[in-house]
Amino acid sequence: MTINFTTIQWVGGINGHVEMIDQTLLPNEARMIAVRDEQAMWQAIKTLQVRGAPAIGVAAAYGVVLGLQTIPDQAPTEEALAQLDRVREYLATSRPTAVNLFWALNRMAGTARDTHASDAGQLKSRLLTEANTIRDEDAAMCRAIGRYGWQLIPENAGVLTHCNAGGLATAEYGTALALMYTAKEQGRSFHVFADETRPLLQGARLTAWELAQAGIDVTLICDNMAGLLMRQGKIHLVVTGADRIAANGDAANKIGTYSVAVLAHAHNIPFYIAAPTSTFDLATPSGDQIPIEERHPDEITKPFGASIAPAGIGVFNPAFDVTPHHRITAIITEKGIIQNPDEIRIRDFFKTNN
Amino acid sequence: MTINFTTIQWVGGINGHVEMIDQTLLPNEARMIAVRDEQAMWQAIKTLQVRGAPAIGVAAAYGVVLGLQTIPDQAPTEEALAQLDRVREYLATSRPTAVNLFWALNRMAGTARDTHASDAGQLKSRLLTEANTIRDEDAAMCRAIGRYGWQLIPENAGVLTHCNAGGLATAEYGTALALMYTAKEQGRSFHVFADETRPLLQGARLTAWELAQAGIDVTLICDNMAGLLMRQGKIHLVVTGADRIAANGDAANKIGTYSVAVLAHAHNIPFYIAAPTSTFDLATPSGDQIPIEERHPDEITKPFGASIAPAGIGVFNPAFDVTPHHRITAIITEKGIIQNPDEIRIRDFFKTNN
Repeated sequence: MTINFTTIQWVGGINGHVEMIDQTLLPNEARMIAVRDEQAMWQAIKTLQVRGAPAIGVAAAYGVVLGLQTIPDQAPTEEALAQLDRVREYLATSRPTAVNLFWALNRMAGTARDTHASDAGQLKSRLLTEANTIRDEDAAMCRAIGRYGWQLIPENAGVLTHCNAGGLATAEYGTALALMYTAKEQGRSFHVFADETRPLLQGARLTAWELAQAGIDVTLICDNMAGLLMRQGKIHLVVTGADRIAANGDAANKIGTYSVAVLAHAHNIPFYIAAPTSTFDLATPSGDQIPIEERHPDEITKPFGASIAPAGIGVFNPAFDVTPHHRITAIITEKGIIQNPDEIRIRDFFKTNN
Repeated sequence: MTINFTTIQWVGGINGHVEMIDQTLLPNEARMIAVRDEQAMWQAIKTLQVRGAPAIGVAAAYGVVLGLQTIPDQAPTEEALAQLDRVREYLATSRPTAVNLFWALNRMAGTARDTHASDAGQLKSRLLTEANTIRDEDAAMCRAIGRYGWQLIPENAGVLTHCNAGGLATAEYGTALALMYTAKEQGRSFHVFADETRPLLQGARLTAWELAQAGIDVTLICDNMAGLLMRQGKIHLVVTGADRIAANGDAANKIGTYSVAVLAHAHNIPFYIAAPTSTFDLATPSGDQIPIEERHPDEITKPFGASIAPAGIGVFNPAFDVTPHHRITAIITEKGIIQNPDEIRIRDFFKTNN
């Protein structure tokens, strides 16, 4: 394995807990924290101690298990199911734009319904197994994305990525970074440029950290430098993750992704999105229906406690933007690559790969 | 006057000193500092206590005056001229890419040569007058840029600017911001979006500060948010300054300007540059001959002392980029507007306005 850290895992049996790397402390400290109840998990998701669509899904699934630990094993199944509904609704409010959050919560609920457990203990045990399965499937999914996508990185290529769609965003290899980890395993030489990704600097703090850990050449840049590098011919492809992809291929991802896609298009550079099929929200026709979450102005004006802007200044702090599908060269999933994604190609892809 | 701060001024007679606002302390503190010798002026230019092409020109001119204060008034003119050459060469190393620095130093040298002073005292007096004239001309130049350009801001427009081409960059109204100050004087309503401008955050610290001081509606954004705002139809024009404009209209300006210009083009939004004619370097045929200064990695990895990236990570930190002339809708100067700038139109413009 190319990476050597653990993003999130379950420790112990049904009364165990979650261990995760606290991503708000990176890159200065790689501290593992214990998460022992659903309130702590809500907080961890909300404050970005765990972030990235697939990792949030895993975290939410484990959060459901944590939320049922207060129900005695011998309690009736109905009591556990009622508690599960409360926990689901609660965890759903932690990060309302993360489609994987809802996907994982719904999957856990479906499993609970289908189990016909004789008591709460049996149900809890089944749900822990399911959460572990979600984690393992995610790890396998990332490997598959890497296998499908790594050859898109030509020998000696310069690769630009934005935000963190890496191992830290998932159970293991990540999505966008899975291409890089796999390419490295395959002996390919390449160089990565990592956008620092204001305001929360996931590129500087997380992507640069995990690529450097894996021994991959990486250069950190500010978001506004990508255009210059493209003009200088130093970038041969762009690959990012996505938080939510509409039925027509429009992709919501970290703020700034859209600008990178437009810049790539203007310089005839392919722009790829790497994301598991669970990121697709086929009930949403296009990006126009994806709400843009706005976050607190302090994220921009008070990074690291320092005040970098006049007190009380107006601030616009969208967390995401939407890249329209015609700016996306291809979407790399764990089931294959969707070239020139649009509504028809995506529908056909899901028909073929179900 | 719409603005109510003093970027740089001379205080006292020939043995006086320079007062300037320390721009590295903004926006949290508007502290005036005294600059009393050429070493302090070199340091002030180098560390960006004073920045912006025209303000650097004024600072350099005053720096020459400061550098001659150690020569007694009754010393022979030749002694003062020899000292002036040393001071010029020294100040020229403070910010090698700022063409206004050289322009001002050469102008001071020319004045010194043409004066035929009888002694050092007479020469020093003449040079202080010249430095004050450079300052006053700059203030008048900014007003003229504002008068020519303000009508490019339509009623209720959204205006995007990058970095700081404001009063803090000049003796008074600035270049890009002169359009806004003048538009406000003319009663026009509009809204400004200010790119924070990583790594040194001149947009957040300086532009947002001076626009808010002047009572102009301003919203701070991160550099990677401009594309989203353009797509949302909230930006109707972009205007920035320039540090150096080649004979064909290619314009070097703060890193990120090129990306903004490409994004504006992709959204059919006019992209203007506001700059005095002294910013033109007609001896440089195109932007390809403009060297890109690279600055220290710590500017990116250690903002405000905080460490935001893994120790020892590779960093690319170009201070400038070059926007090719075909991405520039017009250049607004103190002598008029150059539409669709190219080599021929610029040559004609300078022929007509000399």
